[in-house]
Amino acid sequence: MFKNVDLMTAIVTPFDKNNQINYPAMKKLVDHCLKTGTRGFVVGATTGETPELTDDEKVELYTKFGQMVPSNVPVIAGVGTNNTKESIRMTKKVGAIKGVDVCLEVVPYYNKPDQRGMFAHFTQIAAVSPVPIMMYNIPGRTGVKMANDTIVKLSHNPNIIGLKQCGTMEDMEYLVQHCDQHFVIYSGEDPQALFTKIVGGNGVISVASHIYGKQMRKMYDALYKGDYKTAGELQCKLTPVMGALFMYPSPSPTKAVLNAQGFDVGGCRMPLLALNKPEKQALAKALGLPQDALLHSLSKELKL
Amino acid sequence: MFKNVDLMTAIVTPFDKNNQINYPAMKKLVDHCLKTGTRGFVVGATTGETPELTDDEKVELYTKFGQMVPSNVPVIAGVGTNNTKESIRMTKKVGAIKGVDVCLEVVPYYNKPDQRGMFAHFTQIAAVSPVPIMMYNIPGRTGVKMANDTIVKLSHNPNIIGLKQCGTMEDMEYLVQHCDQHFVIYSGEDPQALFTKIVGGNGVISVASHIYGKQMRKMYDALYKGDYKTAGELQCKLTPVMGALFMYPSPSPTKAVLNAQGFDVGGCRMPLLALNKPEKQALAKALGLPQDALLHSLSKELKL
Amino acid sequence: MFKNVDLMTAIVTPFDKNNQINYPAMKKLVDHCLKTGTRGFVVGATTGETPELTDDEKVELYTKFGQMVPSNVPVIAGVGTNNTKESIRMTKKVGAIKGVDVCLEVVPYYNKPDQRGMFAHFTQIAAVSPVPIMMYNIPGRTGVKMANDTIVKLSHNPNIIGLKQCGTMEDMEYLVQHCDQHFVIYSGEDPQALFTKIVGGNGVISVASHIYGKQMRKMYDALYKGDYKTAGELQCKLTPVMGALFMYPSPSPTKAVLNAQGFDVGGCRMPLLALNKPEKQALAKALGLPQDALLHSLSKELKL
Amino acid sequence: MFKNVDLMTAIVTPFDKNNQINYPAMKKLVDHCLKTGTRGFVVGATTGETPELTDDEKVELYTKFGQMVPSNVPVIAGVGTNNTKESIRMTKKVGAIKGVDVCLEVVPYYNKPDQRGMFAHFTQIAAVSPVPIMMYNIPGRTGVKMANDTIVKLSHNPNIIGLKQCGTMEDMEYLVQHCDQHFVIYSGEDPQALFTKIVGGNGVISVASHIYGKQMRKMYDALYKGDYKTAGELQCKLTPVMGALFMYPSPSPTKAVLNAQGFDVGGCRMPLLALNKPEKQALAKALGLPQDALLHSLSKELKL
Repeated sequence: MFKNVDLMTAIVTPFDKNNQINYPAMKKLVDHCLKTGTRGFVVGATTGETPELTDDEKVELYTKFGQMVPSNVPVIAGVGTNNTKESIRMTKKVGAIKGVDVCLEVVPYYNKPDQRGMFAHFTQIAAVSPVPIMMYNIPGRTGVKMANDTIVKLSHNPNIIGLKQCGTMEDMEYLVQHCDQHFVIYSGEDPQALFTKIVGGNGVISVASHIYGKQMRKMYDALYKGDYKTAGELQCKLTPVMGALFMYPSPSPTKAVLNAQGFDVGGCRMPLLALNKPEKQALAKALGLPQDALLHSLSKELKL
Repeated sequence: MFKNVDLMTAIVTPFDKNNQINYPAMKKLVDHCLKTGTRGFVVGATTGETPELTDDEKVELYTKFGQMVPSNVPVIAGVGTNNTKESIRMTKKVGAIKGVDVCLEVVPYYNKPDQRGMFAHFTQIAAVSPVPIMMYNIPGRTGVKMANDTIVKLSHNPNIIGLKQCGTMEDMEYLVQHCDQHFVIYSGEDPQALFTKIVGGNGVISVASHIYGKQMRKMYDALYKGDYKTAGELQCKLTPVMGALFMYPSPSPTKAVLNAQGFDVGGCRMPLLALNKPEKQALAKALGLPQDALLHSLSKELKL
Repeated sequence: MFKNVDLMTAIVTPFDKNNQINYPAMKKLVDHCLKTGTRGFVVGATTGETPELTDDEKVELYTKFGQMVPSNVPVIAGVGTNNTKESIRMTKKVGAIKGVDVCLEVVPYYNKPDQRGMFAHFTQIAAVSPVPIMMYNIPGRTGVKMANDTIVKLSHNPNIIGLKQCGTMEDMEYLVQHCDQHFVIYSGEDPQALFTKIVGGNGVISVASHIYGKQMRKMYDALYKGDYKTAGELQCKLTPVMGALFMYPSPSPTKAVLNAQGFDVGGCRMPLLALNKPEKQALAKALGLPQDALLHSLSKELKL
Repeated sequence: MFKNVDLMTAIVTPFDKNNQINYPAMKKLVDHCLKTGTRGFVVGATTGETPELTDDEKVELYTKFGQMVPSNVPVIAGVGTNNTKESIRMTKKVGAIKGVDVCLEVVPYYNKPDQRGMFAHFTQIAAVSPVPIMMYNIPGRTGVKMANDTIVKLSHNPNIIGLKQCGTMEDMEYLVQHCDQHFVIYSGEDPQALFTKIVGGNGVISVASHIYGKQMRKMYDALYKGDYKTAGELQCKLTPVMGALFMYPSPSPTKAVLNAQGFDVGGCRMPLLALNKPEKQALAKALGLPQDALLHSLSKELKL
């Protein structure tokens, strides 16, 4: 399913003026992403503001999203919570949706389980999921780290298809070398996009690809041709703007840029807030744009 | 409401053999806590496994808990989530329960709002809550830290009554000096119980007090009499056992001790797990008990 | 030797206009410290810019300092380096100086020995030192932490008299409870001055006592009388100014204040620099003084 | 001078049975390194136990080393200390030695200068050095980090030829993009060897190259041919053994392996210690060797 899928986008959830999901805007954004290098999607991840969606909204969103995206493009839907029973309930529901290929299950946040608890959590979910699950390891958000050993053990579960990993490159290298053959590994950190591919990972689940997809595609394609210098230089230029998209709570910076580009993705749901004017100016600066670039309409093709 | 309330217990939620809330066990535990020094409760905090309770369970739990506890003992009920709208909905419901004096609202976990978002989050909840709210700042679980300045600003909101704070003593000292007169501040870190009181905080919201309440009471009472040496020595002896109660995901170690003491609090809900045999033995050692102490029945009075 | 010695000053080394040690200024400062609460000295510690003194300067400084200070006031002289052989050589020399009561030996910095190497290092130095040695554990400067267990083992060496410790209060409590009876323990962190005393440590080796000695003395004396509230409030007010004295490389902020107070302690030796004007203004603000307070002459009695 | 110099070795200093520098062993090791991929040397760095050498020993070592190494192979000699005046004195002396091409100057350790102090420190040394200097930024040892901006400013100094950098890849990318044209940048972290080259750095100053030089050479050569997959796989296999060489204080693990391989490099000087038997067994395991491999004689060609 993930063959040649190096660049996936963790897509934002557009909201309309009434703070409801804006499906036409989502369709437009999906098409833009596919045209600029994206080869798969994670919908309803943190970037998609999933903590601020109701269960009913998630089911509707994933159902419509599954219809929007060509069937050969993998769709991974965010499901996991910090409650095993609840995660199982939603996984059964979401995994049955047509067009959802994989359920994304995060390491439980806030209640801080240990490795034994994580192993049990993912094993129980995998046992009942109608589709394969992907695990999501992001210690900076969850307060706990799933250890390499735990991941390797879980990688042998045939219904656990892979991992979205936020960690060091040392961990990434270890995982690539030790996980099961069938298991795919994506970095969840945009600045590791190139290095992950080089050490044998599958690629990146990206936020920056909403905006810099063409450059990321060019980077990967240069690498495949053996032109590591061009690839390396592109990563160097991408890294700071990738960082800038996290200088305020994500996805608010990404949405600010997309809105200026005319994608009409709306604001964020509380406790996240849309950027205010000084924040937009600071973001513009960090992206190498004129100070007021995000206050007016902006080209869909940004330079590095 | 919090006058003379120095020691509060963040009480565990007992489960029966069917993994349902065990109210008789809870009543027994409440009485034990009150007899051994506790002067207030937080029910449905992390220690109470609130992420693993349904909304209906929470409402029932808080309703019955409000009836169990004498009316002069403050009851703080855990409500907050990482979704502002959802937190508002539940706060209205829980705040209307008889016997709930305060709603506890955590800094949003996992989605990582910034200071502006936190300020808006707590302000909106406070605006509609039927009872005063207390904020809960615990960066190790939430991935973000509410800054001192933000707390000071929020302390002037008359419907925000106080803070449960997990941070450095430097931060505690700053907050005590700068927050509003009406605002109460409790440490959420047992090893800071003594220092917090010395620098002018209100006390501690404790896990260890389930088990070491008498010694904690003795420590505070020694301090009040000016006997800082006895108080200091007690803290020295308490600190390692307080730490031991977090050597596995909380509240599993506390429940293991309480079960051995005959309180019948049951296991934990997934993704948390009850301690297995080697873990119980390691915990016993860390508490200065014989290796198999937690495998058999244990005195309700542990020595330091 | 350390009975009733709760407050020691890690005294700065004054330099004259030619960047040579200014002994008259040192004498004046010593007298000031003794009058304002100091009961012992560490000379030639980091605060004394010992890395920027030659061996000959150190020997002269310690010889003269031994003569300056009343014989009942303990003098600890900084000796240790990250080279065991060299530390032994200097310890023999400095330990023979009249008036030097103790040699201070730092955990080796930069070359990052392990616990076994630290144990051997201190054991070999103690074996040949003419006077007892005190160890100095400051991971933020040395890049390695001497573990509690290693310290406890070394505390049983009769020629190792004590420890200057920069760590958590948990570590301090453990050490107080477990180290040898004869062993003294001082915090090297001013904000821990009060807590260290409360949990049974001997006191603090202070930088802030150059300037806020009276308040620190008052804090300790209040504690001894059982007035923990006054002591706690003083610590709350001292903590931020203690921190401010480290907002630029120490001892440059302390020297800036002392110079404004007329103590004529001069600048710093490279790679440390005297504060420039904007830095003096920022420091003044952090100390609660008027913006230009450190540009002109300043009272020797600062308020909190 | 550094054209095509991608792999440099920070060479250990061999000691004989009397703990004196063993020059025949050093010559043998130099030849081995050159044969297995090394294209330049840093002598008297931390790996060379420079904190444990006297000034006279350093001068003798660098003089003889300059003669050992072919003149087209760059030699960088460790000189810097945490005392600017002393660093200047030694730089003048060492920079005048025939065969020393560059003086390595570390960011001052232990006394923790700020950016202004670092800038002044390096500028003053560069002003008097007979040969170009290279700066060494290693926060884990020094306790302070030289900031990217400071490095960029210093890179424009014509007598500062480059940097040995231990930091994140984000910092490396920034520096490569922003430093002066003439300025060379090497990573001081073996696990970054490949990534550094890809993003445009000059290469790595390595410890692992004593032992795994052939594989590191093969890795770089694969990259140059565009075969990123082979290069990436080699890095994956090298990273854990590179880490193992730092599982005890460096260079003791490297010396243990070299001794088993017959290079006769001797022990370490205090406070560093030669590995004991259990440490050698643990290291062997971490290197993928039989448990007792380092207790007996070992092949000069280790497999990954």
